[in-house]
Amino acid sequence: MLPDIEIARAAPKRPMPEVAAKIGIPETALIPYGREIAKIDRAFLDAIEPRAEGRLILVTAITPTPAGEGKTTTTVGLGDGLSRIGKRAAICIREASLGPNFGMKGGAAGGGRAQVVPMEAMNLHFTGDFHAVTAAHNLLAAMIENHLYWGNALDLDPRRVRWRRVIDMNDRALRDIVTGLGGVANGAPRQTGFDITAASEVMACLCLARDLADLEVRLGRIVIGERADRSPVTCAELKAAGAMAVLLRDALQPNLVQTIEHTPAFVHGGPFANIAHGCSSVIATRAALRLADYVVTEAGFGADLGAEKFFDIKCRSAGLLPAAAVIVATVRALKMQGGTALADLGREDVAALSRGCANLGRHIANTRGFGVPVVVAINAFESDTEAEIAALVDYAAHQGCRAVLCRHWAEGGAGAEDLAREVVRLAEGPGGFAPLYPDEMGLFEKIEEVAKRIYHADAVIAEASLRDQLATWEAQGFGALPVCVAKTQYSFSTDPKRRGAPNGHSVTLREVRLSAGAGFVVAICGEILTMPGLPRAPAAERIGLTAAGEVEGLF
Amino acid sequence: MLPDIEIARAAPKRPMPEVAAKIGIPETALIPYGREIAKIDRAFLDAIEPRAEGRLILVTAITPTPAGEGKTTTTVGLGDGLSRIGKRAAICIREASLGPNFGMKGGAAGGGRAQVVPMEAMNLHFTGDFHAVTAAHNLLAAMIENHLYWGNALDLDPRRVRWRRVIDMNDRALRDIVTGLGGVANGAPRQTGFDITAASEVMACLCLARDLADLEVRLGRIVIGERADRSPVTCAELKAAGAMAVLLRDALQPNLVQTIEHTPAFVHGGPFANIAHGCSSVIATRAALRLADYVVTEAGFGADLGAEKFFDIKCRSAGLLPAAAVIVATVRALKMQGGTALADLGREDVAALSRGCANLGRHIANTRGFGVPVVVAINAFESDTEAEIAALVDYAAHQGCRAVLCRHWAEGGAGAEDLAREVVRLAEGPGGFAPLYPDEMGLFEKIEEVAKRIYHADAVIAEASLRDQLATWEAQGFGALPVCVAKTQYSFSTDPKRRGAPNGHSVTLREVRLSAGAGFVVAICGEILTMPGLPRAPAAERIGLTAAGEVEGLF
Repeated sequence: MLPDIEIARAAPKRPMPEVAAKIGIPETALIPYGREIAKIDRAFLDAIEPRAEGRLILVTAITPTPAGEGKTTTTVGLGDGLSRIGKRAAICIREASLGPNFGMKGGAAGGGRAQVVPMEAMNLHFTGDFHAVTAAHNLLAAMIENHLYWGNALDLDPRRVRWRRVIDMNDRALRDIVTGLGGVANGAPRQTGFDITAASEVMACLCLARDLADLEVRLGRIVIGERADRSPVTCAELKAAGAMAVLLRDALQPNLVQTIEHTPAFVHGGPFANIAHGCSSVIATRAALRLADYVVTEAGFGADLGAEKFFDIKCRSAGLLPAAAVIVATVRALKMQGGTALADLGREDVAALSRGCANLGRHIANTRGFGVPVVVAINAFESDTEAEIAALVDYAAHQGCRAVLCRHWAEGGAGAEDLAREVVRLAEGPGGFAPLYPDEMGLFEKIEEVAKRIYHADAVIAEASLRDQLATWEAQGFGALPVCVAKTQYSFSTDPKRRGAPNGHSVTLREVRLSAGAGFVVAICGEILTMPGLPRAPAAERIGLTAAGEVEGLF
Repeated sequence: MLPDIEIARAAPKRPMPEVAAKIGIPETALIPYGREIAKIDRAFLDAIEPRAEGRLILVTAITPTPAGEGKTTTTVGLGDGLSRIGKRAAICIREASLGPNFGMKGGAAGGGRAQVVPMEAMNLHFTGDFHAVTAAHNLLAAMIENHLYWGNALDLDPRRVRWRRVIDMNDRALRDIVTGLGGVANGAPRQTGFDITAASEVMACLCLARDLADLEVRLGRIVIGERADRSPVTCAELKAAGAMAVLLRDALQPNLVQTIEHTPAFVHGGPFANIAHGCSSVIATRAALRLADYVVTEAGFGADLGAEKFFDIKCRSAGLLPAAAVIVATVRALKMQGGTALADLGREDVAALSRGCANLGRHIANTRGFGVPVVVAINAFESDTEAEIAALVDYAAHQGCRAVLCRHWAEGGAGAEDLAREVVRLAEGPGGFAPLYPDEMGLFEKIEEVAKRIYHADAVIAEASLRDQLATWEAQGFGALPVCVAKTQYSFSTDPKRRGAPNGHSVTLREVRLSAGAGFVVAICGEILTMPGLPRAPAAERIGLTAAGEVEGLF
């Protein structure tokens, strides 16, 4: 196989009007951004609002390991597979963050023959959506500083401003800074910092908003800090939401590109998957559901984090009813879950695989707990043996679900036709989706519910001050929000080394944060880094342009 | 007259392929960004490189006052006027900075019936060029921090890092900051700050680069700081130039839009007019000269600053030969130069006007000193009287040049046909352009040359340390660079209150900065703010979206 970037570059692309026409988007609804990307016009989105919805398929995964499980690749492959078996299909995935590309090799959108193109644009500025989020977020920061500077009429406590700034760059030196030095003309010194743009609450607002009006409402609800009496101060009180919405007006229109097999692909939004919900935008998903019969989307990390947030935050907020879920697993990753060391993954080890299947089994049961039928997609690797595959298929069968061998990485959509057929079969069944907990449950109880029923922990340990904070937010009217748990993605527990399906563990709550604009309460149960650094030899040193002006070193 | 924004919105726009075809750009060379903006493909720019050049017309102005002189409006009007008299014309202007729009009312591109459209996009994200500059600039900053963090193999003196960060936002709290707090994982504390993006040396590099290869060379030359022995450390040594060029690859392709009379308008680049050269991009100007017979462009501030930098930095660097210059004057602004108070400008005052004409006279003589023929454009206001106009025309005639009454603000190109005819007449004469000083003159002598011959100062006062710094740069091989003087735009002198054509003043050099990448030495002779703040009641508070999704409050 050629490298991903060469496959992507060599793939002949169809004109965007032709790709859009596959799902009934007229050329007049396309706003071109370069030759291979289009945004979908707001007026068209409004016009299709009354239409019936197609079936929503979530692609999630077992607990991730460095061995990789191929969630985006499977999302793309399944979309192409559905197209190949004659279904009107679309995929919905997240946009890539710019900054991390200059640290490690850039993330592609899928891999092998299951990719979304154009790859360079998608890993660089794309349609500028991240830049728009950065600008809107930092405008609010500037307006907060300006409000303090000109007399602080809102009585905001400068020590309790919690709105930081964002930049789409890996820059550890900006994590913890003091601003406002240099005298009166520059304001007063204040300790603050920068997060990476994907971690912005503005990004989460953009991804959960139904339309422009809803976006402005969400932005207005953002709590930027508190007064001395601890009452919240909002973005709306600073009169910033309108200007922020202006900066985000174009960014809210979903981006359309294509897979290398020309299936329409919405690539829109890119929130963090720990301190935010980690799913592509509601507006793209809802549009796709009105245009295609099958919409394939994914959620970040393993199903314990990604699928749970997809169901309890995104589906709850947007009224989405997922029809089926695909849990991606690889033989290699399951062997790691069963205790095999990275160096030994090439060797057959059915026993380790069988032990590791406990991880898969728990994700299957958890996902079914939401009333969503499940199929396991085995993302094939060359080193997989027949005995291993058979053991995995057998394990799934004992859980009452099919595990389908998929070869979309090597073969494109043709390698995912079996998966596509099983997805269609499942999605035709009666829908039974329900979120994990009701809105009216207490915030702490919601955290417990996720910890006990999804992570299978015995208890949530939290200091009184954290419980008090949650109670205060309930008293302030934020009690109906869902919770967004930030913890390691490498284990069901909070210990990244505990593989498989651990029991007998407890979850310690370290911090809680209110994202009133996005519409959730973040429960932090681990070390969460919201501003990455660059490695010793960053990819940026090797990234450049060839004499012909082509990008090299980015992939 | 309707407000500018309503005129702009009501103006029927021609499809971009039709606008481009007016100057022979085929549709295949257009890269669409939305429906009303296109970038010009790099391959097409390469293909037209061998073509002969059209005539380059600079629009500059008298010393500006709050009364306004209408330089961009005249640039647009003249372009439309040239089109109307049958010439193949194009205009080249700068892109607007995003941040300041949220402080004061947004700057439009021209005004009245002499505007460039679409106005909203141009005052918001446009094609993302500023965001690309921000990203490239801050990537270099992150790589500097990262280099220090991982052992500092280049022996960069952390106290002598002069590369700051940029953001396209008015945020005074970021002027002076300390980064790297919070312990070892975040680096070491260091005092630094943010400038606004337009002040970035990366922006100046983008605007002076001939092509992508030249851009990468310029980026590599940027001096980011010094070692303990004071030797310079460059961007190339940090291996950052390639990745920065990748981020700027699309941004370097010029943007094409149209005037409301459908004259092709290149809007590309937006460097500061004090610590940088303040002109739109070389790449757009050179492309326009190969496509149109007359290319109208402008330079920031009055002719003492803007035209001087245009001639001595942009034209010198790019080998451009300006064929004529238009000096924009208004009766109101000349009366202010003659001593009239703002409140009294509506009253006829021929005597004040005549006194103020000394300012115009000096700009005429200065501009002619570069070997460029001059016409004065009188940008008509309703309050102008016949006697005032007559006195101004008479004054210009005594200087041996025509002053042409222009009504493009009210009438569009029809109001600038007389000006267009005079420009054509002047531009047909034999060219005689020469920069003010030769490359090989010493850096301090170059500053003296500008101060004495353009500002008419008696002397340049500078402490020995500044002269030593200039001598060090000469020894390091930077002696052939032109100088870029940053001083108040409100007077020929360094005192903004001295109107007219002051004599007997001296210029005090406060600071010098090396912009080795852009290719000039900045001589700071006044208070220069590179990060603006927001006013007490920022425009952002009034900016928002109507129910129909239209932007309001921005203009």
